[in-house]
Amino acid sequence: MRIARIAHASGIDHALLEDGTAHLIADPFSAGGPRVRPLGRRVPLGQARLLAPTQPRTVVGMAHNTGEEDRRLPPQAFLKPSRSVIGPHETVPLPPAAGHVDAEAELAVVLAAPLDGHTPATVHRAVFGYTLANDVTSRDLQDRDPLWTSAKGQAGFTPLGPWIETGLSPAQADDLELTLRVDDAPPSTASTAHLARGVAEILVHLAGYLPLGPGDVVLTGAPGRPLRLRPGGRARIDAEALGTLANPVARPPARHPVAGLATEGAP
Amino acid sequence: MRIARIAHASGIDHALLEDGTAHLIADPFSAGGPRVRPLGRRVPLGQARLLAPTQPRTVVGMAHNTGEEDRRLPPQAFLKPSRSVIGPHETVPLPPAAGHVDAEAELAVVLAAPLDGHTPATVHRAVFGYTLANDVTSRDLQDRDPLWTSAKGQAGFTPLGPWIETGLSPAQADDLELTLRVDDAPPSTASTAHLARGVAEILVHLAGYLPLGPGDVVLTGAPGRPLRLRPGGRARIDAEALGTLANPVARPPARHPVAGLATEGAP
Repeated sequence: MRIARIAHASGIDHALLEDGTAHLIADPFSAGGPRVRPLGRRVPLGQARLLAPTQPRTVVGMAHNTGEEDRRLPPQAFLKPSRSVIGPHETVPLPPAAGHVDAEAELAVVLAAPLDGHTPATVHRAVFGYTLANDVTSRDLQDRDPLWTSAKGQAGFTPLGPWIETGLSPAQADDLELTLRVDDAPPSTASTAHLARGVAEILVHLAGYLPLGPGDVVLTGAPGRPLRLRPGGRARIDAEALGTLANPVARPPARHPVAGLATEGAP
Repeated sequence: MRIARIAHASGIDHALLEDGTAHLIADPFSAGGPRVRPLGRRVPLGQARLLAPTQPRTVVGMAHNTGEEDRRLPPQAFLKPSRSVIGPHETVPLPPAAGHVDAEAELAVVLAAPLDGHTPATVHRAVFGYTLANDVTSRDLQDRDPLWTSAKGQAGFTPLGPWIETGLSPAQADDLELTLRVDDAPPSTASTAHLARGVAEILVHLAGYLPLGPGDVVLTGAPGRPLRLRPGGRARIDAEALGTLANPVARPPARHPVAGLATEGAP
């Protein structure tokens, strides 16, 4: 099944996508009930805009998870702020202060449940499905900020989508070809089979210390080469089983300072 | 005003606390409308349990922000997962693998609005109020994990409360005495006046790169000495203007592995 979040004439809803139609469903990440509960209403896809398919409370990514040599290092995770998530076709802002900024094409795991107590043999049951993510990263800020907060945490630095595919098997998720295209650069193609650690190993590692829950997102790491983003350009990630995540890239609009003097005293 | 989040016989609500009574209010962090909108129902405080006063989408803390010498370093922020937040009297779990774990008493800023475009003169308008936080941190994991995710991100590592005080002036927030008590150790007392950077400077720094919004929490850094936590003990933070945040500390219950074998195929 393809589960999306859409903006349409009557508001914002989660939806099951089928045959060009969005069948609205209840929030699949709220507590209780079946994960996919139809609301009995539908919207033609042409009248809907795809949003990021989940609004996670936590987005966690894996550092150094590319290739066999990264297995020599202990697994290590970083957090991205949940408000850095944007949807398909939303613009990635590239502030001048961010300098050299790369796109990284990654498989994202969307959770259905906490990971506590899971083993590699059971952890896939906590998975709701998979989607694509662009783990946008400023190399210049990463050099200056060893905690990576400014390098990876900026507004719009986590494009996610286009929808969540719930039908991918664990074996398919661990050998999924991702292609990243940025402007006229030669495409970067690689399979998640080249990650140092696969989905089950990553999730069991995180289960050991990080509180995660329904709707949260795990970025599994980029198996392929990153490509540099430039204002006026576009990043596009394709995977046959997951669709296309495309985002324009632009300088952010100038911020207008908030007018007036501070009000002293209580806010 | 003191704004809390409470569990009571009919559910969970935000509330304005006054004269031993919780006056229920609409979610102060939802879009539109006045920040404090009474629902016309009340609960005696004796029949309510205080929860963490906000469910932030993002919790951000300031690294090395203690004392004048830290001003020589550029300001630097770290993220804690929003699900690490717990309320007053909830237990801080101390997993054996976390080793040496410290309590840090901090002033927490709860935001009412995004910080974009604010200057030091206007940024207090984006502040909803202030509360206390314990920025629980594993020193052993901080040594091994330079991104701090495991050191600061574990379940229960961000006690927050007891309520949000909206009446603190910027000057009061920047000279607030915090006292941390852990078990029989000598108390650790210090004022936020000893932070390297005060509230306005921190918020304007974060406004430069981090997407934050209503209900989000900024931990301003510990002005005083941290104190080591031990299973069976208790951490308590007091500030005259903000109340008391007390939490027991215990080994976490053993995790029971999820029974059964993996279901192959679609989750």
